[in-house]
Amino acid sequence: MDRFGWVPSFGGNISARLDGRSIAITRSGGRKGFLGRDNIIAVDLEGRPLNAGDRPSAETLLHCHVYRDLPEVGAVLHGHSVAATVLSRLVTGPAITLAGYEMIKAFEIHHTHDVRVSVPVFENSQDMERLVHDIGPELPRHIPGYILRGHGAYAWGRTVDNAMANLEALEFLLQCELETLKVRGLSAA
Amino acid sequence: MDRFGWVPSFGGNISARLDGRSIAITRSGGRKGFLGRDNIIAVDLEGRPLNAGDRPSAETLLHCHVYRDLPEVGAVLHGHSVAATVLSRLVTGPAITLAGYEMIKAFEIHHTHDVRVSVPVFENSQDMERLVHDIGPELPRHIPGYILRGHGAYAWGRTVDNAMANLEALEFLLQCELETLKVRGLSAA
Amino acid sequence: MDRFGWVPSFGGNISARLDGRSIAITRSGGRKGFLGRDNIIAVDLEGRPLNAGDRPSAETLLHCHVYRDLPEVGAVLHGHSVAATVLSRLVTGPAITLAGYEMIKAFEIHHTHDVRVSVPVFENSQDMERLVHDIGPELPRHIPGYILRGHGAYAWGRTVDNAMANLEALEFLLQCELETLKVRGLSAA
Amino acid sequence: MDRFGWVPSFGGNISARLDGRSIAITRSGGRKGFLGRDNIIAVDLEGRPLNAGDRPSAETLLHCHVYRDLPEVGAVLHGHSVAATVLSRLVTGPAITLAGYEMIKAFEIHHTHDVRVSVPVFENSQDMERLVHDIGPELPRHIPGYILRGHGAYAWGRTVDNAMANLEALEFLLQCELETLKVRGLSAA
Repeated sequence: MDRFGWVPSFGGNISARLDGRSIAITRSGGRKGFLGRDNIIAVDLEGRPLNAGDRPSAETLLHCHVYRDLPEVGAVLHGHSVAATVLSRLVTGPAITLAGYEMIKAFEIHHTHDVRVSVPVFENSQDMERLVHDIGPELPRHIPGYILRGHGAYAWGRTVDNAMANLEALEFLLQCELETLKVRGLSAA
Repeated sequence: MDRFGWVPSFGGNISARLDGRSIAITRSGGRKGFLGRDNIIAVDLEGRPLNAGDRPSAETLLHCHVYRDLPEVGAVLHGHSVAATVLSRLVTGPAITLAGYEMIKAFEIHHTHDVRVSVPVFENSQDMERLVHDIGPELPRHIPGYILRGHGAYAWGRTVDNAMANLEALEFLLQCELETLKVRGLSAA
Repeated sequence: MDRFGWVPSFGGNISARLDGRSIAITRSGGRKGFLGRDNIIAVDLEGRPLNAGDRPSAETLLHCHVYRDLPEVGAVLHGHSVAATVLSRLVTGPAITLAGYEMIKAFEIHHTHDVRVSVPVFENSQDMERLVHDIGPELPRHIPGYILRGHGAYAWGRTVDNAMANLEALEFLLQCELETLKVRGLSAA
Repeated sequence: MDRFGWVPSFGGNISARLDGRSIAITRSGGRKGFLGRDNIIAVDLEGRPLNAGDRPSAETLLHCHVYRDLPEVGAVLHGHSVAATVLSRLVTGPAITLAGYEMIKAFEIHHTHDVRVSVPVFENSQDMERLVHDIGPELPRHIPGYILRGHGAYAWGRTVDNAMANLEALEFLLQCELETLKVRGLSAA
């Protein structure tokens, strides 16, 4: 994620399921391209640290939301890309629709490239409980990820490798859409 | 290819001729920037695995098509670049015409930069036998590659190094065309 | 900074506070992606070399200005990015206003993403004393950095890591703004 | 140069002065990001190989032209960047004018950023003797480089490091100009 420029500054967070009741997740702060063991803590599925002294980042709640709702998920990645940030501000509706791309096939869930996929875009907030509420109890089943407007993308998968493959597919598609808008202009969005 | 962002997610595939009757090719799935020996299998020129347990990716048939038609080809590369994906969706015809670029000289086949080159663009499909049929029995002789619309580029060469040089030349030219459209707008396409 | 292309040619300079009276700073010239011990000198807070033979770059005075005005600052980074250079030429006013980006939260000073942040843009000059005068005795408190028009960005922080995080956040936001202008056109600036 | 994508395919060539009568230069073909000793040959200042069996690339004559005309030059770099290629096709005149950029100061020759610099653009040709004739007996003195239209940039300097710094400055400025055209449109060129 660092190599692609998706975790600038202290942005982004990365988690993996430890077992049915806890996850490992990057600590608040720290540059994600330079992670050491000290930058990772364990929390339960409500976001409470297993070691009392640890301070999870606020967005830990969004990760937990995914693990609670989708038992098959083993990893969740959140990055801040230029494409996700810019595109979600340019496109004002509640979703970004993608159609006719082979890359749609890459998402773990789909098995044809014909399908039209809607990537949910939720309004950004600093109130994580409100954000979890806005996202709703059920995460999207048709695509393994969503976007926070002006903020970045979340993606998940059975393993860290699958979550990364899903994030790469999502970011690729967002880049394609942004490049297209640069040629066609916003009226084509 | 990974360094340039041309094999995002589990995308792309890479092959090299073993002998007159078989090729080595990347297995279905797997991130192509992290290939190990286990990610590569051997198939015959009809795409049937030499080891019964191996499962080739569907696109293996497109690689085999090149090796059957062009006996001098030693390697075939297929990547998913943003430029090839976006440009082949913006330009709706059956080819992308390139003219006046020194880089055209880089293709193994041409020896002047004046020539006008047409890169064939075939409609994408999940039905590989149909796609092989659409491409036709004879691959282009004037350029060592083609594009699948909204999907990515294929390129080939006598060696892996030559195939990569041809792919880099093709992707460079597609990037140039896309950058030009961002300035001139689509009416200039 | 080199990895991101922010120190092209002999551009950019990097400093860190040694103590209350002196700083270490990159020497004039030299490619900043290939720094050795010989490329770094020590100067006092007025920019005078501690070792008489050393020749500080002219912009050393801008670094010293930050260390004198902001005692908590431990590091100052100056880079030449394409985004900072181009955007500060396109936007003609005395500031670039950023609003509604989560990344604004990344700056050490802010703790909400709602705030509207103005990044000061000063007119470039080769006369460093005049530039220090134009910037004024008090550096901005609301954002840890500023831009020199057609030249590049300065950013600072308590540590080198914090300064880099602030610079990455600033450059990310400038990239977002530039990408947005490519879609919306300059009238949207 | 490879890291920045300026030597795609078998493109680009790199040379350094050995003494008053000969230079080392990359051989025809070969990927410039993967150079070994075998990829470099020695030629005299007329481009004739010192070892009879070596075959210099056609563009060796352009390198020799620089070394003959400018005795202080120790290295010449030629790359194929997207920015140089696209910009020199968009801007149809005999030069690209750059003004108001701090980066202009980076060129070994200039010592103020106010100056307006014209980068010569020569029409591309496969006939190197004609190209040398078109460039003329005297290379530009006001800027250490030029552009071949639709082809790429040449830059030189006293040392390899200085030549690279000059090339980086030139490519940075061309990128800035191209980014500006993407926002302002071609009528602003």
